[in-house]
Amino acid sequence: MKNEIKDFPDALAKEAITLAHGSGGKFSAELIERCMLPRFGNEHLNRLEDQAILAMGSGRIAFSTDSYVVSPLFFPGGDIGELAVNGTVNDVAMAGARPLYLSLALILEEGLPFADLERILDSIKRAADEAGVVIVTGDTKVVERGSCDKIFINTSGIGIVADHVRLGADQIQAGDKIIISGTLADHGMTILTARHQLSLENAVQSDTAPLADLVQTMLAAAPNLHALRDPTRGGVAMTLNEFAQQTGLGFNLREEALPVNNAVRCVCEILGIDPLYVANEGKLIGVVSPDEADSLLAAMQGHPRGEKAAIIGTVGKENPGLVTLTTTLGASRVVDMPVAEQLPRIC
Amino acid sequence: MKNEIKDFPDALAKEAITLAHGSGGKFSAELIERCMLPRFGNEHLNRLEDQAILAMGSGRIAFSTDSYVVSPLFFPGGDIGELAVNGTVNDVAMAGARPLYLSLALILEEGLPFADLERILDSIKRAADEAGVVIVTGDTKVVERGSCDKIFINTSGIGIVADHVRLGADQIQAGDKIIISGTLADHGMTILTARHQLSLENAVQSDTAPLADLVQTMLAAAPNLHALRDPTRGGVAMTLNEFAQQTGLGFNLREEALPVNNAVRCVCEILGIDPLYVANEGKLIGVVSPDEADSLLAAMQGHPRGEKAAIIGTVGKENPGLVTLTTTLGASRVVDMPVAEQLPRIC
Repeated sequence: MKNEIKDFPDALAKEAITLAHGSGGKFSAELIERCMLPRFGNEHLNRLEDQAILAMGSGRIAFSTDSYVVSPLFFPGGDIGELAVNGTVNDVAMAGARPLYLSLALILEEGLPFADLERILDSIKRAADEAGVVIVTGDTKVVERGSCDKIFINTSGIGIVADHVRLGADQIQAGDKIIISGTLADHGMTILTARHQLSLENAVQSDTAPLADLVQTMLAAAPNLHALRDPTRGGVAMTLNEFAQQTGLGFNLREEALPVNNAVRCVCEILGIDPLYVANEGKLIGVVSPDEADSLLAAMQGHPRGEKAAIIGTVGKENPGLVTLTTTLGASRVVDMPVAEQLPRIC
Repeated sequence: MKNEIKDFPDALAKEAITLAHGSGGKFSAELIERCMLPRFGNEHLNRLEDQAILAMGSGRIAFSTDSYVVSPLFFPGGDIGELAVNGTVNDVAMAGARPLYLSLALILEEGLPFADLERILDSIKRAADEAGVVIVTGDTKVVERGSCDKIFINTSGIGIVADHVRLGADQIQAGDKIIISGTLADHGMTILTARHQLSLENAVQSDTAPLADLVQTMLAAAPNLHALRDPTRGGVAMTLNEFAQQTGLGFNLREEALPVNNAVRCVCEILGIDPLYVANEGKLIGVVSPDEADSLLAAMQGHPRGEKAAIIGTVGKENPGLVTLTTTLGASRVVDMPVAEQLPRIC
């Protein structure tokens, strides 16, 4: 075998990903040396073992995973790399945790240009730095041309949950207020317009952003914050329907209170899409005791990730298990759980 | 939008995966209800939050990730599901950790039959039970037909490392003995023969297996166990080359000591493949202080996952940074790091 493999054309492997980069052999090692360690190198990753060893103290940890298959890879306001960091950081943060560590697993299609890979890895590095998380372990697989679409990324995240923090649907009570940290539907409408190459001069941009710092601000301002969730796939409608089903309570929204960016609202109206069903990637929904709602809102509006925060509704015992919307005209309608795929591969 | 989605043909979605199963909406929820909770349901997963909250005590944790893209999905001795559990469990265990928790992230191709998905999920459940790990958080994405090859799986794992355990390449010393827990090359040769549909009547079978319990037996028998790693992609040759580069020591193997299953040896000889370069998925290499090598070997041979364990070589100061093999005839040759992709998508 030694003689066979000496003929391998090294030059090819400088420009684009080859199957050899996923072999676990010399080219895999070179990929780590060339692309990973210069960006992500740290005491954990530099050990080059199959796992990271992390001293976590005595608290509880939050653990979350997400795979990212968004298409296109690059879109106004972000790219798959940034999304892969922020999405998992936010899922960890929604427990009230401080995200600390990420794993990074790549599935690459043979032929992926190194230029694209490195641009995505640069984004991952920037997003990890901004979110204050460290990439401590990873994996790279390569599949034959046509067996995946350019690049899929999985990140898993670990964070620490402070002793007194207890967030979850099971904490929600009738009378609670529903708060959103900013405008609806930005990410999803960005992907839709980017995919169809609608020329909007970047008026619609993804809101991908890390929310962990905003969450800490919220916890400090409102000890009786009951639940947090980020409205990604399925949008605000899905998140609130999940809460409604899990609590058996009714979630009533006021249409006039829903913050929507003007350009997003226009595109939604032209295409006949309800922004309640469209994904965000840098917003969260909080459910909070009514006596703390105003102070929580003020704290959120004072944070760069929550400037457009708004109280959008109330939890009650009417319409149990349902989400309802009181329209601007005063009518009321049910906001169903989304059924079909509105837009595949949004994240 | 409500009217549009009501026309969605529910019936289709009973037989095969549709894009709607990755939407985050009603079909995503049904997939979790139908396929995930009945198999994997536990206090963490049943919360249906975006993350698991885990009480880990005060120890250090080991954290590892791997994506699995093996083709074919089903092969003699295992399938992608079993591999996805055992592979990550083993990466966690190689730190001397007790694996406790797994995440499970699926990327599914539109059209994947539910029968295949459920067979794989059953394997995951069995393997997790056998390894003593609990699946606590997960994610499912669906991509359009042709955008991935049937199913890719990512698992990330968390385990607890006991206070006194310090394993790693940095612990290896000249004079140490190299031990392998069983026969070489079983998994890789199985994938190769399965892919080319060589009829071997299952004489060659994957060795995919969880090794965490064997590791605990080894730690009890040999407090001066210095390093553990599992020879997966790139085989024993790659694992030892990594050790050699990281330590600057020479790793000398005795060819006659290398355990190889007879059928595997025959296929390797026919195809001209060196078993040193072929992946295992249920074996480990230990590097241990020479005074504990015999007692460690005996302990391993008394464990079901180590019956064919063997001392296969020695670490020394000669040939620094290289792996060498002393052949049965007494000659010596260098065992290079593998270069090209011998066999793509082996795991």
